[in-house]
Amino acid sequence: MSKITFLGAGSTVFAKNVLGDCMTVPTLQDFEFALYDIDHERLKDSEVMLKNMKKKLKSTGNIVAYTDRKEALRGAKYVINAIQVGGYDPSTIIDFEIPKKYGLRQTIADTVGIGGLFRSLRTIPVMMDFAKDMQEVCPDAWFLNYTNPMAALTGAMLRYTGIKTVGLCHSVQVCTDHLLKDLDMPTDNVQWKIAGINHMAWLLEVTRNGQDLYPEIKKRAKERQNTIHDDMVRYELMQRFGYYITESSEHNAEYHPYFIKKRYPELIDRFNIPIDKYLRRCVNQIEAWKAMREELVHNKELAHSRTGEYGSYIMEAMETNVPIKIGGNVMNTGGLISNLPEKACVEVPCLVDSSGVTPTHVGELPEQLAALNRTNINTQLLTIEAAMTSKKEHIYQAAMLDPHTSAELSIDDIVALCDDLIEAHGDWLPEYK
Amino acid sequence: MSKITFLGAGSTVFAKNVLGDCMTVPTLQDFEFALYDIDHERLKDSEVMLKNMKKKLKSTGNIVAYTDRKEALRGAKYVINAIQVGGYDPSTIIDFEIPKKYGLRQTIADTVGIGGLFRSLRTIPVMMDFAKDMQEVCPDAWFLNYTNPMAALTGAMLRYTGIKTVGLCHSVQVCTDHLLKDLDMPTDNVQWKIAGINHMAWLLEVTRNGQDLYPEIKKRAKERQNTIHDDMVRYELMQRFGYYITESSEHNAEYHPYFIKKRYPELIDRFNIPIDKYLRRCVNQIEAWKAMREELVHNKELAHSRTGEYGSYIMEAMETNVPIKIGGNVMNTGGLISNLPEKACVEVPCLVDSSGVTPTHVGELPEQLAALNRTNINTQLLTIEAAMTSKKEHIYQAAMLDPHTSAELSIDDIVALCDDLIEAHGDWLPEYK
Amino acid sequence: MSKITFLGAGSTVFAKNVLGDCMTVPTLQDFEFALYDIDHERLKDSEVMLKNMKKKLKSTGNIVAYTDRKEALRGAKYVINAIQVGGYDPSTIIDFEIPKKYGLRQTIADTVGIGGLFRSLRTIPVMMDFAKDMQEVCPDAWFLNYTNPMAALTGAMLRYTGIKTVGLCHSVQVCTDHLLKDLDMPTDNVQWKIAGINHMAWLLEVTRNGQDLYPEIKKRAKERQNTIHDDMVRYELMQRFGYYITESSEHNAEYHPYFIKKRYPELIDRFNIPIDKYLRRCVNQIEAWKAMREELVHNKELAHSRTGEYGSYIMEAMETNVPIKIGGNVMNTGGLISNLPEKACVEVPCLVDSSGVTPTHVGELPEQLAALNRTNINTQLLTIEAAMTSKKEHIYQAAMLDPHTSAELSIDDIVALCDDLIEAHGDWLPEYK
Amino acid sequence: MSKITFLGAGSTVFAKNVLGDCMTVPTLQDFEFALYDIDHERLKDSEVMLKNMKKKLKSTGNIVAYTDRKEALRGAKYVINAIQVGGYDPSTIIDFEIPKKYGLRQTIADTVGIGGLFRSLRTIPVMMDFAKDMQEVCPDAWFLNYTNPMAALTGAMLRYTGIKTVGLCHSVQVCTDHLLKDLDMPTDNVQWKIAGINHMAWLLEVTRNGQDLYPEIKKRAKERQNTIHDDMVRYELMQRFGYYITESSEHNAEYHPYFIKKRYPELIDRFNIPIDKYLRRCVNQIEAWKAMREELVHNKELAHSRTGEYGSYIMEAMETNVPIKIGGNVMNTGGLISNLPEKACVEVPCLVDSSGVTPTHVGELPEQLAALNRTNINTQLLTIEAAMTSKKEHIYQAAMLDPHTSAELSIDDIVALCDDLIEAHGDWLPEYK
Repeated sequence: MSKITFLGAGSTVFAKNVLGDCMTVPTLQDFEFALYDIDHERLKDSEVMLKNMKKKLKSTGNIVAYTDRKEALRGAKYVINAIQVGGYDPSTIIDFEIPKKYGLRQTIADTVGIGGLFRSLRTIPVMMDFAKDMQEVCPDAWFLNYTNPMAALTGAMLRYTGIKTVGLCHSVQVCTDHLLKDLDMPTDNVQWKIAGINHMAWLLEVTRNGQDLYPEIKKRAKERQNTIHDDMVRYELMQRFGYYITESSEHNAEYHPYFIKKRYPELIDRFNIPIDKYLRRCVNQIEAWKAMREELVHNKELAHSRTGEYGSYIMEAMETNVPIKIGGNVMNTGGLISNLPEKACVEVPCLVDSSGVTPTHVGELPEQLAALNRTNINTQLLTIEAAMTSKKEHIYQAAMLDPHTSAELSIDDIVALCDDLIEAHGDWLPEYK
Repeated sequence: MSKITFLGAGSTVFAKNVLGDCMTVPTLQDFEFALYDIDHERLKDSEVMLKNMKKKLKSTGNIVAYTDRKEALRGAKYVINAIQVGGYDPSTIIDFEIPKKYGLRQTIADTVGIGGLFRSLRTIPVMMDFAKDMQEVCPDAWFLNYTNPMAALTGAMLRYTGIKTVGLCHSVQVCTDHLLKDLDMPTDNVQWKIAGINHMAWLLEVTRNGQDLYPEIKKRAKERQNTIHDDMVRYELMQRFGYYITESSEHNAEYHPYFIKKRYPELIDRFNIPIDKYLRRCVNQIEAWKAMREELVHNKELAHSRTGEYGSYIMEAMETNVPIKIGGNVMNTGGLISNLPEKACVEVPCLVDSSGVTPTHVGELPEQLAALNRTNINTQLLTIEAAMTSKKEHIYQAAMLDPHTSAELSIDDIVALCDDLIEAHGDWLPEYK
Repeated sequence: MSKITFLGAGSTVFAKNVLGDCMTVPTLQDFEFALYDIDHERLKDSEVMLKNMKKKLKSTGNIVAYTDRKEALRGAKYVINAIQVGGYDPSTIIDFEIPKKYGLRQTIADTVGIGGLFRSLRTIPVMMDFAKDMQEVCPDAWFLNYTNPMAALTGAMLRYTGIKTVGLCHSVQVCTDHLLKDLDMPTDNVQWKIAGINHMAWLLEVTRNGQDLYPEIKKRAKERQNTIHDDMVRYELMQRFGYYITESSEHNAEYHPYFIKKRYPELIDRFNIPIDKYLRRCVNQIEAWKAMREELVHNKELAHSRTGEYGSYIMEAMETNVPIKIGGNVMNTGGLISNLPEKACVEVPCLVDSSGVTPTHVGELPEQLAALNRTNINTQLLTIEAAMTSKKEHIYQAAMLDPHTSAELSIDDIVALCDDLIEAHGDWLPEYK
Repeated sequence: MSKITFLGAGSTVFAKNVLGDCMTVPTLQDFEFALYDIDHERLKDSEVMLKNMKKKLKSTGNIVAYTDRKEALRGAKYVINAIQVGGYDPSTIIDFEIPKKYGLRQTIADTVGIGGLFRSLRTIPVMMDFAKDMQEVCPDAWFLNYTNPMAALTGAMLRYTGIKTVGLCHSVQVCTDHLLKDLDMPTDNVQWKIAGINHMAWLLEVTRNGQDLYPEIKKRAKERQNTIHDDMVRYELMQRFGYYITESSEHNAEYHPYFIKKRYPELIDRFNIPIDKYLRRCVNQIEAWKAMREELVHNKELAHSRTGEYGSYIMEAMETNVPIKIGGNVMNTGGLISNLPEKACVEVPCLVDSSGVTPTHVGELPEQLAALNRTNINTQLLTIEAAMTSKKEHIYQAAMLDPHTSAELSIDDIVALCDDLIEAHGDWLPEYK
């Protein structure tokens, strides 16, 4: 019996989506779904829920919860990674509140920026441990990474472990439809091409029946900017740099030095920027979970229709050899995107079939897009450097190279802030020298 | 109405296959099928045959024969190229008979070697003319090249015209099945990976349910070499270099210096090498055509089931945006195969969908395979150099770099042979200086 | 008679240095020194001065002033470029004063930043005209570019003209000595290696008798930061990023987002940053020139000893074939510095001899140094994009990607500032759309 | 006291040249010259000779002979490698005589070809041992490799040890002068550029006072081919491929499939090819040594003037930091020659100074030259593969890819020949599986 191992299976809703998807796929029927989480209560919840759903869906997969990680991984063919290290409390709170003392405001803090940096620093060591286990008990498994910060984590896995890894984010597949719907434009027969880095990949082409849609998109987007809406940062970036981005305004607000500026407090309203958004979202999710838990966990009639998440589609393609195309995060080896560094982890179209995940060659990005990507890659590469060398200086450098952090703070404040964050993290971080 | 233009439509059987395939594809129903050939009689035959077949298949495509090439191309969305310049008589005869006077024997002569070289030299100028027309009347069309010598022709198109081109050969898709059937091994659930250059691409991986099939393949192949069969050269190459090749023994016999050797006349029998095979095949085909013509051309009940040729699948994938994977011939830009020259035309897995043909990144070939490829790429690159500069010295160099030619002949004989071939070709070649 | 053409010969002091150097070199004795400047009065001054100096130095070169540029260039073997487009008044004043209205302060404004950007935009078109002339009258000449902004100008020449060009700056050759002297360390037997981009190249290695000097350098530098001195920014960058930089603190203060920050006004004093330094320097130079002119121009006893400027050494090496090593600015083709973009203009060790200027392969920079370089390369590449496409959007993008500009200003202010600068420049810029 | 270690110091004449050169260099006066050889008698001879010469030259270096290799290497700053493994008898005899039984004739057998292959196979393991010792006792030393086969040996050192290595051959520095003198052309003021692989590097440019000398060279060379002379192969290659090669006709005769051909026995006379030349040379050298020994070893008046060998110049440049340019053998990392494989060991202009040996970027070779290089690189890379994996199959592949071997022999004969050679080598080779 083949095995799909889900690390972080206590994320009940996400486990429902990805494993529920799997239950709907004929070729994945005979798999064991191995659940693992360090939170045994949540693990139990997920197990119960999935077993209910399995019955409802008449799936024949075998659901097993493990409290021993290595046993969960043993013999796995696929490993889904959806963990969070440190949780909302204390880690996410730390990521937001300490920078705030220095006047550094954030929105999501899960990609780059000071929050993304520390999220990477506490997660990479855990993933290195996963890799060590996998080398021992399932060296040929595919590791499907859903955990953020995507580029730093996936890059570290690909550069420092031999584990076959791809990084996955739903921001690619929903990008074009989202944009067109927002602008009341038709979405059928639309062809698009997206490449860049995770959360800052570019809609390079968007055509309908062979016609370039960008002129109309930009015209409508410009009009839309006259009213307040939720995607103002992205539209502004598109107007200025010429291309639409995969990740939302609430994310992109903190990837650039342009939007959250002490010197221009009015920009927060002007671009409708939700400072501390992720903090509020976490609190809401925790509340929502309480409300939802009963209904989800013990609902014997729990239904599920296949979502758009890549996970089950990838495993299906690998099993059936019917190819699919995904936007995957992979090393830029050989210069898939020729004007980004080879050590960058890039998000490019990948072909998936029984031969695995094979990235395609993209070529050169328009210079301004490559330039914006490079400003974020700078931090990502230094973050990996810090995590793998355990040198504080690289933490400081990662932070100093972050466009938003360096725009807002002085070097002294950046260093003091990093020191505060290292201390506040306590045992959530390995020792730095 | 969109348009598929077929250049060399007088190849009635091939036109039947590719355009017949198209007639069975729902998304290609409303296309015009534009037929063009310089042989108006054969063009007429194909037109009649296709119109019969269309009725039988209840296809709604529009079949139009053109005697003006530019009109045939005007507005095309796809162009199929399946031409032969110079034909059996005089060109193929020249390609075989003149080398034979120098003691240089060939089998197929359509890839590299002295025959492949001159076949390229007379075909590239014609394709440059196609490209010029296309730039004028259908600059955005995809050019699906089926014409050999694949690497030299496709390489010349990709390097010297702006036309979107992919080179196609059925040798990739049939490779693994053919091998396994020959060895009485099961073909279901088989995963494979092929990359290299056209006619010398390598079966890099072949597994069944995750298990490497090569040990069993090599064992059976070795046994099979004890009796005379049709694939002895390929099996020998696999035993010596470790991997199976996409093209047949009758081709590979002349790509290497190992098999057709004046000094070892016994090898011809030992490896069952069909000298002059292509000459005989042409004569047979001409005869067969006479016999088949009536039945094919005027057969109102002419049926067709979709073949495995890539053509219709590619157009379907581009129209429907449902991805497929093909083995396509593309430039090695960015080092898709990192140990082959970037100017080589390589055959690698490509993803096809509405964004076009996107090559995937392969990485490094095992050193001995890259080495064998390089010996043939040498001739291919010099062939293109000759065709694009019109310098005789590059013709000589291309021939001197061909492994089989240089193994058999002295420099003086190679030069004299090239001069004889240039003269014999007369107006079929542009002027060389 | 061979010919060295000096464009911008009205820069009397610099012409004295480079051409005076040439007069001391035996192998350059029989050259014509062709002087050209659009300022005919200054041109005359330089001519008179050089003729005096020639007599004094008993040089046999022939000094000729030209008012027709093409005639000055005709038949040249070497062309020295030391021009300034727009001069102190109006252009330099504009470069500083208009940004200041937006609160954007600068120190030198000749490399990147808003000032460097516009300096490039008004200079690149002039250099494209030089190249056009040179293609006509001296296509094989070596173009030794001393004009700033070095990376953008040299990059534009190398990418868009066929002229053999190298960019030269004395910051490389004086770097190590300067550092060691400042720290009271011995300078004999010191080996060093420098690579990066102009004005931000890195002292990658500095050893004495095989011993790494960096630990001692950093120790002394740290102590020195306790008192106010002129190189505080550079020392701070070394402490934070681990390596010393080729250009001075007054330059580097504006290449990064760390030092000139509205939000941290105290940093100006803390790091002793000379805001508007270049403006004051220009005024002083103009005053100094008035005082110096008589003494320099009509001084029949004007002596000269060879300076350290690369110019005469390069021409001597090319003439004598005795090799020298320089830090030259060249295209990063083939990834000389493998983690910087191939289109970047990089400053790397180059070998100069009769075969010309040949760059050496550097390999990978430490990640944090490559990252800092990339933040400046971003602006440089977009600057070239703007100059060569005449699109305003690329001007805005170049400015938005500048680390200092984007840290200080909002997008709206950046765009308004660019528009103001375009207008203020008037005919000094070509038309942008 | 710094130390130069000479491995293979029993090569008395070569030791005289390189270490004698060193004795004439002021900056190398205070070095210890550490001599090592497994032949203690020859080692003693060299010691005596060098001590005599030292007195005569009034050098102050310290000459010490070692019989313990690790002690000889301990603390070395430079290591000269000039060894021969297996000697004339038995190894060289084996390399020639066994192939001859198969009808495979050779001339020098020290580069590629069947002889070069086995010479590499017995030498690489010894050099890996050197590297192991050096890692322990002089990890920072520069390893100057003079031992052939240059590309395979230097490539193996550079890829599989961390030792700073450059491969040196005098064929580069004498190439142009040799050619011009042979053709009675002046040699002053000549500029040239050479790049390729060792023994097959190309004279890419040769000018005098800016004028291309190739037309005149080719005219004279063509005339000269009317009479029998010693460089006929090289001239023929130049006429056919357009460029002159660094290594002599006696070498190049066996690098290509064009000259030593069973089927064309007349070519031996026509191109004046000295079959078995190296065998005769060895015998002559052994005889000559007997005659010369007394005079050389015990000659208290032994004088020496500095030769053109790179060795002493490289060490001088590293010590004084006065740069020189050499043709050095280095890895093609980053594509120094962009159309050769990155794993090839290439011979390119290198800058040498106190920063070490820094290769320069060459770019693309003319296609026909790259093609010829690739035919030899194929064998070199497979040779290294064989030596590092201990797999017989790679020995066979290396031989099958050799242009001369594969032109002359069948696969069966090649394999049988390799097996014979492996057996004949006995303990001179490690075990192959």
